[in-house]
Amino acid sequence: MLLCDIGNTFLHFYHKGKIWKEKPYALTKKKEGLPIYYISVNERFERCLLASHSYCINVNEHIELKTQYSGLGVDRKAACRAVDDGVIIDAGSAITIDVMQEGIHLGGYIMPGLESYKKMYADISRVLGRDIEPGVDLTQLPQNTSDAISFGVLKSIILMIKNTSRTKKLYFTGGDGKFFARFFEDAIYDNTLVFKGMQKALQKHI
Amino acid sequence: MLLCDIGNTFLHFYHKGKIWKEKPYALTKKKEGLPIYYISVNERFERCLLASHSYCINVNEHIELKTQYSGLGVDRKAACRAVDDGVIIDAGSAITIDVMQEGIHLGGYIMPGLESYKKMYADISRVLGRDIEPGVDLTQLPQNTSDAISFGVLKSIILMIKNTSRTKKLYFTGGDGKFFARFFEDAIYDNTLVFKGMQKALQKHI
Repeated sequence: MLLCDIGNTFLHFYHKGKIWKEKPYALTKKKEGLPIYYISVNERFERCLLASHSYCINVNEHIELKTQYSGLGVDRKAACRAVDDGVIIDAGSAITIDVMQEGIHLGGYIMPGLESYKKMYADISRVLGRDIEPGVDLTQLPQNTSDAISFGVLKSIILMIKNTSRTKKLYFTGGDGKFFARFFEDAIYDNTLVFKGMQKALQKHI
Repeated sequence: MLLCDIGNTFLHFYHKGKIWKEKPYALTKKKEGLPIYYISVNERFERCLLASHSYCINVNEHIELKTQYSGLGVDRKAACRAVDDGVIIDAGSAITIDVMQEGIHLGGYIMPGLESYKKMYADISRVLGRDIEPGVDLTQLPQNTSDAISFGVLKSIILMIKNTSRTKKLYFTGGDGKFFARFFEDAIYDNTLVFKGMQKALQKHI
């Protein structure tokens, strides 16, 4: 079984324990006859997959999660399905932070992803168009523009995660998940979280 | 004396205790012969002012501040000059947070402004293009997309300001300054902070 998670920047694939990403307009041809079970938050990129592969099955509706939240993205649902208790941080184009307790989703929120922040500062003023410096000292007040921006982005995301986590276990996933995980003790980084949740949900149906 | 602060969205004017803003390409004609003392962080908008008024004096270099920070915007310098002890939050196109102690600037950082956040979410995905809801409950985990975005933006900015302020007095200024001030007890909102600092600095020179 080949699994695929169609996001807002990449398509992520999972097959036999391997995970890889592909750009929507440069998809490689997958093995003939191997069905692709996919979830999607992006219709345009979904059409890219469908146009190039014959056996694609949209399983969005099979990813069920106990929650009061209306309009929860299917990728968030899948990642949350993989964790019964903890905070799930998916750091990609956007950063989503969700809380699970005894198999129930308690709610969550959305921050912009690192790339979006970078672009946003550049849009405000040419002077602010800087890279986010991963090594910026978050314990000292910044003394230049570059640090001032990196500090503003990273510390605000980290304070939010700390404020949400309290005593809960943290699970990081997504492109920048590994980077953020290192700011927290005992955090787990697992880039297959969405696929683990998909598998768990699909076992019931397929 | 007419004062002007040229920012990245508007030109703010100050005359005899009155303050108002104008768009760079729709400037009203000021009284003939009245000199305009201005500071500017935007060369393009500065040219708009110079093209339409004869007596304009750039006073950027007169706004001095004791600081180790390199590249501090002149508007931040001016606002900081107005406060000897406290945290200065200028919430405009960007949100700058600066700390003053005994007349010395200890450092500061930059977050995106509310409008930028809104635009940034919309750029990530059409689904995320929502208004920031000022009344969102910041004590409960959000249960829908709109709240999830407002919570992510507002709570992260507020947590950062709280983390910086500790026991210091908070001074808010800028277009969204009044809005943010209401989240903090005993906060001061003063939309003339930049001009007060300009006046203080200019008294030495003019």
